[in-house]
Amino acid sequence: MITLTSDFGLKDPYVAEIKGVILTIFPKTTIIDITHEIEKFNVQMAAFVLASAVPYFPEKTIHLAVVDPGVGSERRAILIQTKKAFFVGPDNGLLILAAESQGIEHVYELTNPKLMMSYVSNTFHGRDIFAPAAAYLDKGMKPFEYGPEIKDPVKPEFAQIVRKNNSIIGEVIHIDSFGNIITNISEKDIQSLNKIITVELLQFSLRLNFANNYAQGKIKEPIALVGSHGFVEIALNRGNAAESFLVKVGDKITFISE
Amino acid sequence: MITLTSDFGLKDPYVAEIKGVILTIFPKTTIIDITHEIEKFNVQMAAFVLASAVPYFPEKTIHLAVVDPGVGSERRAILIQTKKAFFVGPDNGLLILAAESQGIEHVYELTNPKLMMSYVSNTFHGRDIFAPAAAYLDKGMKPFEYGPEIKDPVKPEFAQIVRKNNSIIGEVIHIDSFGNIITNISEKDIQSLNKIITVELLQFSLRLNFANNYAQGKIKEPIALVGSHGFVEIALNRGNAAESFLVKVGDKITFISE
Amino acid sequence: MITLTSDFGLKDPYVAEIKGVILTIFPKTTIIDITHEIEKFNVQMAAFVLASAVPYFPEKTIHLAVVDPGVGSERRAILIQTKKAFFVGPDNGLLILAAESQGIEHVYELTNPKLMMSYVSNTFHGRDIFAPAAAYLDKGMKPFEYGPEIKDPVKPEFAQIVRKNNSIIGEVIHIDSFGNIITNISEKDIQSLNKIITVELLQFSLRLNFANNYAQGKIKEPIALVGSHGFVEIALNRGNAAESFLVKVGDKITFISE
Repeated sequence: MITLTSDFGLKDPYVAEIKGVILTIFPKTTIIDITHEIEKFNVQMAAFVLASAVPYFPEKTIHLAVVDPGVGSERRAILIQTKKAFFVGPDNGLLILAAESQGIEHVYELTNPKLMMSYVSNTFHGRDIFAPAAAYLDKGMKPFEYGPEIKDPVKPEFAQIVRKNNSIIGEVIHIDSFGNIITNISEKDIQSLNKIITVELLQFSLRLNFANNYAQGKIKEPIALVGSHGFVEIALNRGNAAESFLVKVGDKITFISE
Repeated sequence: MITLTSDFGLKDPYVAEIKGVILTIFPKTTIIDITHEIEKFNVQMAAFVLASAVPYFPEKTIHLAVVDPGVGSERRAILIQTKKAFFVGPDNGLLILAAESQGIEHVYELTNPKLMMSYVSNTFHGRDIFAPAAAYLDKGMKPFEYGPEIKDPVKPEFAQIVRKNNSIIGEVIHIDSFGNIITNISEKDIQSLNKIITVELLQFSLRLNFANNYAQGKIKEPIALVGSHGFVEIALNRGNAAESFLVKVGDKITFISE
Repeated sequence: MITLTSDFGLKDPYVAEIKGVILTIFPKTTIIDITHEIEKFNVQMAAFVLASAVPYFPEKTIHLAVVDPGVGSERRAILIQTKKAFFVGPDNGLLILAAESQGIEHVYELTNPKLMMSYVSNTFHGRDIFAPAAAYLDKGMKPFEYGPEIKDPVKPEFAQIVRKNNSIIGEVIHIDSFGNIITNISEKDIQSLNKIITVELLQFSLRLNFANNYAQGKIKEPIALVGSHGFVEIALNRGNAAESFLVKVGDKITFISE
């Protein structure tokens, strides 16, 4: 099974070309889209979405992900073998968050031209390098046949949380299509906080409760809760929190315990 | 075969997580998306789209649908067995329109924890309850193993049409991506009307003909016709009727025979 | 294997109905979406996207495409057999660009009612004629069983490029979701040009270099390059060229060699 994650959108032929290449090499595989609606060039958002989804896929799944502002430059193409699955994509930090959560065993650079399209364009490695790499892997090729093992894959520089007395300062890493504001603060990080907190956003300061689910808030009342991905989020019951509080990805967010 | 219908959109990891759960439990199944672009929390729109699509799927198909403003509250999770297929989702009316068209045989509440994820979140029953329910069902589990049979599933309160002399008052239940205005008035309902009618919308009054197809109208001329789903709709040949006549879902619409 | 291309979008039940019909007739087939986000009624854009994607699919693939402003009128429904694959859709030029690139062998009109849905609506031939045609073909039906061979399929009238001294005048045929401006000028057409060129758009005149890849340009600097589909495009490294230079599909574009 091969999953696909990209910022290609769905109106162009790009995603279909990747699927066609995969199915030409290995017609029996199953292809599942994680998403192709990553914000253009937003490697951090893609890393978060990929890391959220992969725990739910079977062992041996091959996760192909392409958000690749450096395509055609010197950035490497890599294959990561973890204890559970495989990841194929550019060496720009995109794959590491998800791969590390499964335990990385080996990282190989994709250099073997026999496992690429015979003509490799300068603009579309998703189709010409990553798609054949994933298809041959699913068909039985061994990871070490792709190229030399490397020890220095690019690590993403995602925001770290900061603790100060009774507060935690984090960052907004994703806004989902419901408008839920998802932070980089984990369930464990907030165990020191009380149940009633003040949340400081760039333009709003909110006093609110930690809840267990969206429906627990009154209609249009903001609540904090731990989302299904394990991170703290701010939500509005049947409303759009990000629009209401003018929040965007990358904004600082501070949780202050009462 | 399992179909999916939701308001999750395609940019977040949610739909992929559902697919990963299903394929982990039953790798051989085929998953088909009906749509994930239901307007957020719009149970009526989801019920209409689901009821439009399911007649075209094979017997024994399992239709998983999640538009679920009450997730985490006391609303029940259900499995409906009809004469032709199965439906899995929240007990909020979403499934009933489609299920009734096939003849409902049994409704079960999903309470058996062995047929759920081992950890059930408060915010994402699509992944934690409905996805495993559908996957185990496709794998051969019997419906009665999911929980107690119930006799009082929630019925949706959709608008009924009203007849007055030579007119019919209905409601706009869906606007498709072409801008076609789809009403809750069926082909049978309009048999008493003449071929030339006046249609009263909130801001426009149109005099028009019943046509057989979109191309029959002159370019940008409004027409009424029976759409492929069996309901009366107002369309503009190569134009967007909903935008042109400022119509939205839920608006009243009156057909007056000449 | 069957691919789907349309302007139906993904929020309505239409695409799912097509898939349900196909899977009811031939449950073993694999269905791959090329795109359903073609601009409404834009046959030229669909022809370009289809022609870009099909070279990457295996032999014997059946490409079903529906962008069909004339549905229900007298336009014919056709099946094209090429040296490599099959195409099913309306006879309005949509299929020809892709089919000609593979070598057309036969074109048949779809007239055999046994290979259609038993009830054919006037508004949705994608579901009622093209979907069953594709499904039966994948299941083993012979092309000549669909109806009479025809010799005059509708050819699209796409823009031709014009050469003048040291310049080439073409047209914008597609703007992808990255904002890259894709023209109808091929790699071969530009071999006579120098590496530094002036590009004249409706509202902007740009002096720029031909590059090999997107990353080669400085951030937000416009470049010309040959895209992965073999056509010349104007791109902005990590920016949106079409928005920045106010370009839309159908605009004239002139390349002048220095």
